Amino acid sequence: MADLLPTELIANWQTLHRVFIQPEDENSKKILVKYMEKILFGLHDFLNKHVGVTEEISLAKLSEAYMDTTINKDPQKKLADVIEDIIHDIAPRAVNVASPYFIGHMTSAIPFFMVHLKAITAALNQNVIKLETSKVLSILEKQVIAKMHRMVYKQNDAFYKAHVQNTQTTLGVFTTGGTTANITALWVARNSVLFPKGDFKSIEENGFFQALKTHDLERMVVLVSKRGHFSLKKAGGLLGLGNQNVIAIDVDKNRQIDLSKLKALIQKLKSDGKTKIVAIVGLAGATETGIIDPLPQLADICEEHKIHFHVDAAWGGPVLLSEKYAHLLEGIERADSVTIDCHKQFYMPMTAGMVYFKDPTALDKIAYYASYVNRRGSVDLGIKTLEGSREASSLILDSALKIMGSRGYALMIEHGIETARIFAGKIRKRPCFQVVTEPVLNIVTYRMVPEAIQKKLASGDQTQHLNEVLDTLNKNIQRIQREAGNSFVSRTQLKAFPSDDHDSVVLRSVIMNPMTTPEILDEILDEQEAIFKKIAGTHFPLTGP
Amino acid sequence: MADLLPTELIANWQTLHRVFIQPEDENSKKILVKYMEKILFGLHDFLNKHVGVTEEISLAKLSEAYMDTTINKDPQKKLADVIEDIIHDIAPRAVNVASPYFIGHMTSAIPFFMVHLKAITAALNQNVIKLETSKVLSILEKQVIAKMHRMVYKQNDAFYKAHVQNTQTTLGVFTTGGTTANITALWVARNSVLFPKGDFKSIEENGFFQALKTHDLERMVVLVSKRGHFSLKKAGGLLGLGNQNVIAIDVDKNRQIDLSKLKALIQKLKSDGKTKIVAIVGLAGATETGIIDPLPQLADICEEHKIHFHVDAAWGGPVLLSEKYAHLLEGIERADSVTIDCHKQFYMPMTAGMVYFKDPTALDKIAYYASYVNRRGSVDLGIKTLEGSREASSLILDSALKIMGSRGYALMIEHGIETARIFAGKIRKRPCFQVVTEPVLNIVTYRMVPEAIQKKLASGDQTQHLNEVLDTLNKNIQRIQREAGNSFVSRTQLKAFPSDDHDSVVLRSVIMNPMTTPEILDEILDEQEAIFKKIAGTHFPLTGP
Repeated sequence: MADLLPTELIANWQTLHRVFIQPEDENSKKILVKYMEKILFGLHDFLNKHVGVTEEISLAKLSEAYMDTTINKDPQKKLADVIEDIIHDIAPRAVNVASPYFIGHMTSAIPFFMVHLKAITAALNQNVIKLETSKVLSILEKQVIAKMHRMVYKQNDAFYKAHVQNTQTTLGVFTTGGTTANITALWVARNSVLFPKGDFKSIEENGFFQALKTHDLERMVVLVSKRGHFSLKKAGGLLGLGNQNVIAIDVDKNRQIDLSKLKALIQKLKSDGKTKIVAIVGLAGATETGIIDPLPQLADICEEHKIHFHVDAAWGGPVLLSEKYAHLLEGIERADSVTIDCHKQFYMPMTAGMVYFKDPTALDKIAYYASYVNRRGSVDLGIKTLEGSREASSLILDSALKIMGSRGYALMIEHGIETARIFAGKIRKRPCFQVVTEPVLNIVTYRMVPEAIQKKLASGDQTQHLNEVLDTLNKNIQRIQREAGNSFVSRTQLKAFPSDDHDSVVLRSVIMNPMTTPEILDEILDEQEAIFKKIAGTHFPLTGP
Repeated sequence: MADLLPTELIANWQTLHRVFIQPEDENSKKILVKYMEKILFGLHDFLNKHVGVTEEISLAKLSEAYMDTTINKDPQKKLADVIEDIIHDIAPRAVNVASPYFIGHMTSAIPFFMVHLKAITAALNQNVIKLETSKVLSILEKQVIAKMHRMVYKQNDAFYKAHVQNTQTTLGVFTTGGTTANITALWVARNSVLFPKGDFKSIEENGFFQALKTHDLERMVVLVSKRGHFSLKKAGGLLGLGNQNVIAIDVDKNRQIDLSKLKALIQKLKSDGKTKIVAIVGLAGATETGIIDPLPQLADICEEHKIHFHVDAAWGGPVLLSEKYAHLLEGIERADSVTIDCHKQFYMPMTAGMVYFKDPTALDKIAYYASYVNRRGSVDLGIKTLEGSREASSLILDSALKIMGSRGYALMIEHGIETARIFAGKIRKRPCFQVVTEPVLNIVTYRMVPEAIQKKLASGDQTQHLNEVLDTLNKNIQRIQREAGNSFVSRTQLKAFPSDDHDSVVLRSVIMNPMTTPEILDEILDEQEAIFKKIAGTHFPLTGP
């Protein structure tokens, strides 16, 4: 070890050199491998020992250990100690998102080989912004993008042969996640909606003032169900439309975008003569409920009115790999653009997303060139992306598809959907719970409604007060369960019944870990009931015996 | 191995389970570690064997192997084979950015422990968008951000004590790179420049039409030297200003932003009454030249006119860790916002960037909330970021600072600056080269000007023709050297002399690899001279014997 890293914690030139030259001698090599073994299995042991959201240390107390804001001049720790500290101090206080009892968010377990693949991308450290810092990885990325485009759009062989390695066209781009994928899609839509006229070339070049003045407009809007991901509002703000102009359409009794309300709004917006609809966004599925909007009908509407149709399939996109459930996404192939996340149901490590376009020239609307990078006509993948420098995430996706096959992914997707259905059945059977949204994909929302309150609600008295009690109850159950650290569901706010006029606190479960079994889900519900029993008498006298 | 991965390439449930449960038996564990060893040293061997930009395979030929756009239903390869393929087929055709002969781009060698740290973040797979999927990592990130803020702004202990773990304020955010860091800074600046008035609350909420109408404006602009990174133009387009409104100011004889031209333009813009200046951007240093703009003077101008002062220190930021050269960035502490990249001179793997704000409430201008994530008053780090889900890059930076100390980073920075000066000296001594921009930091631009052409140029005849010849010559030298695969410099276009009225092709070297020695730089120049000799007679008769 003396050969590998400094025995004394002093920064000097010799030490520095050592961290850049990987060691040649067998002993030092062994030490480096040993470290990696610790990472693979030391963290693994933590994952076995700690379930749920980790032991409870109050945030304030935890924060006290992270107050020092000075940077040490000399080294403080050797690599071995840093790894030990992470295993013993950081990991146990991190969140065990890999636990099968962690069913609260869209971050979950990943296949263990993903750590190897991520290590490979770090070791190669290619930057796919530019061919000169990535070469074959840029070519591989174009291929992976074509594979994904084909999964979504199912064009013919000739189409893909023409575009897969075409340096002029772009079927899609990797992004750092669904947020920047959605932003990219709406950015393209915004730039495409107003044609050049006189001095006005594009919003991208001339900005909003000239754009609106030239086209005699006052407003540009995006329409999406109120269940749209918050990144869509953010996109509206960022892109200069104003986030109030990302208009939330009510959902219908199926929790999908209300098509009649959408149509009525389109008519109204078109008739004022001052508003341009930039895009309509369909969800597949919604972040909170997993609901899929009626994509074929949305496609019809967009076609009729010549509006950009974007599908946010950040969550649901990989369902296309399941022959059994791909039909749920019917109509997605008619979208002008589609967002799909890699770190969600492609089970890749944080972070990678993608956005695809039906028209291989659509991304020209956001192309940027520079003479030191991204030259015209080159393969440089940074020309048509929001982000600049990017790691070679496509290598991970490509490798994972080769290791698992589409069928491997399909099995996980199908497990999630079917286990979510079983879960909803279990919730329905328990008298003190109400299923709020049935799973279309692998997301179930529900809430606890103690029988005593159910009866009172039925009488129609004190509805507002009772709902407040239920909100507090469900908030507390979620919090207490999270803090106990055995399991984790999340919470959000939805209409408990489609006809409600207010949003209630609901529990939200996302079943994506293939190790999450029906038995585990029973345990989670048992625990919630036990928590209720424990707090009922004191905090919720209304629900008493 | 039979226990670990399928012996047959069939996707089934049993196989799937195996990739999610890390193996308990010693034999399987050994295999996984062996794979990691291959990754660490198999790729390492490639790095030793292949220097420069890799063996030459024409792009078109390379592309032919990446044409298949179908996804296999069943698995095609085992993990072991995927790793073998990457080592034997992908890596040799990737770019060896870690070679000390690769001095062309801002992507370079990283200390070997970075691969371990990246593997750790993948194994933990925390999502710092939200406390519930990151816990201690969110708290650690706040600490690291405060350390970096302190490096830039040097506020007092009380300030950092008040903000380091404050859930209401935000000193900065991690981004996926300098591009989104710059966009974030200008996004905040755009939203801050117009005060609420009547129905108008903010551009973010109401959009450009209301903003401009309320304030009786027609144009919002950003001012930056023509050496500004292309992400600034992109930001102008994305944010709705129009990229033509990111106005490039000429550089002066020192290649810094021309202050008199800047001042004149500010006066002109202010006098038209219809234009608002969103921000002035100072470079530290410029992507192409490494030049640092006169930050104290820019700060004075911004202060006088109450304009947001952004410093793009994506490249130069870490120079602040060098006691010897930190003075070069004097004035940066007066910036309203500062971009610094992690994957550049913090030597982290792709990709991570950061943006800091002097005012801990500045980022409130881009805050977004959602009931399922990013709740008000929470530590959720996704509230004030452009990106959504994010990996815990702060753990890598924090660990690296502990392993190397600020002095360790300083040594690398100082090596780069001093070696670049030596390099410029070597170029100057060779009669056939011209230094175009002297290194302020660790970037040197130069070009080959054969002596025969130098004489003709001096006579003042045929200037345009001679410059075209020189452009072609330098383009070819760069290309031939790159294709030979022994070493790599990049190229861009700059004025060869400050008084030129056109941009010439120049060679660009970035000295950031601590293994790049003066001897290697001599070899690179020797090779360029040799290439010239070889092509001179045929392609460049003008420069003949």
